[in-house]
Amino acid sequence: MAIYSESIQIATRGRGTLDLSGPIQEIVARSEIAHGLCTSFVHHTSASLILCENADEDVRRDLEAFMARLAPDGDRLFRHTAEGPDDMPSHIRSVLTQSSLTIPVAHGRCDLGTWQGIYLWEHRHGPHQRRLTITVLGD
Amino acid sequence: MAIYSESIQIATRGRGTLDLSGPIQEIVARSEIAHGLCTSFVHHTSASLILCENADEDVRRDLEAFMARLAPDGDRLFRHTAEGPDDMPSHIRSVLTQSSLTIPVAHGRCDLGTWQGIYLWEHRHGPHQRRLTITVLGD
Amino acid sequence: MAIYSESIQIATRGRGTLDLSGPIQEIVARSEIAHGLCTSFVHHTSASLILCENADEDVRRDLEAFMARLAPDGDRLFRHTAEGPDDMPSHIRSVLTQSSLTIPVAHGRCDLGTWQGIYLWEHRHGPHQRRLTITVLGD
Repeated sequence: MAIYSESIQIATRGRGTLDLSGPIQEIVARSEIAHGLCTSFVHHTSASLILCENADEDVRRDLEAFMARLAPDGDRLFRHTAEGPDDMPSHIRSVLTQSSLTIPVAHGRCDLGTWQGIYLWEHRHGPHQRRLTITVLGD
Repeated sequence: MAIYSESIQIATRGRGTLDLSGPIQEIVARSEIAHGLCTSFVHHTSASLILCENADEDVRRDLEAFMARLAPDGDRLFRHTAEGPDDMPSHIRSVLTQSSLTIPVAHGRCDLGTWQGIYLWEHRHGPHQRRLTITVLGD
Repeated sequence: MAIYSESIQIATRGRGTLDLSGPIQEIVARSEIAHGLCTSFVHHTSASLILCENADEDVRRDLEAFMARLAPDGDRLFRHTAEGPDDMPSHIRSVLTQSSLTIPVAHGRCDLGTWQGIYLWEHRHGPHQRRLTITVLGD
């Protein structure tokens, strides 16, 4: 059994989702591992990872609207406000979604369902550099 | 170290939870791996996996009621409505729960706590065929 | 590739978060694995794991306040009340957060971001003994 990893930097343009399925499939290809598991990890607490429907972009727009209602920016419930009204909601969004995603690898690719895409979700309004580590293990 | 995987199809009967602890323990037994990790993955964006209390079925009934209140079917917030009033809430429920669960394997079994069961949660009202891949690795 | 695991018991003092980054880094050190993955798992359905901002303790206070509003103790929606008004909310909090966290290992340590800490979140009001298993695999 082999293990392979790469770290990548993603420049976000503020709150929203970025499709990382392509770059992650390329890393799996470079690993030369045919069958096993691929774990993606984001090294931050105000950006997260989701597996989401990849066909209709209204799905991600609706997710954004849902989260904005669930954990509103500037909520008076929050004491942690020194870093801006979107910082504490970003931590909440990260805790409610994923810092890591583990996906089976089959025939040299992440074996995603037809409608599954891997998204980095930037929760802050400003652009950020986000570091991710992708680890592939198997045969 | 060895790796073993199986894909299974589960026929759901519409919204609700299905206990997969038994079938997953059988796959771990067939893997002949005694100590390591077991990752279960669902290849869909409107069904998900949870580890949940397995004794009182009111717990899953209450979870369902909680999610129905949190992400109501037909919410006017949503634009993604072409696939029915329960489709966008299903994507939200999936994002808020898990597409994959990783559980330690000890003595040839998933080392679940006394009250932990592994459940597939179908979020759509109609019955669906759901594909899962179970990967076991270790010694 | 090698695999190493340890189970630990953590005594909680009731609802709140406990920083486990130190004990988990010690287990990774004892594994003598330099590069790979570390999976932490909690064997319970009313305590969970999160990766959270580790600098300002108001972040965890705000998370607690957010969850108390989202899934209030004693909510009349719930039928599962025999184990107390905080039991069903604890199951919901566990389902919405994580039972397992998988983190890359690099240079013999969990490769956490600067502001990422690993927290055990006790959701019950009373103190509990919580069992966790930490599994490290890699080279």
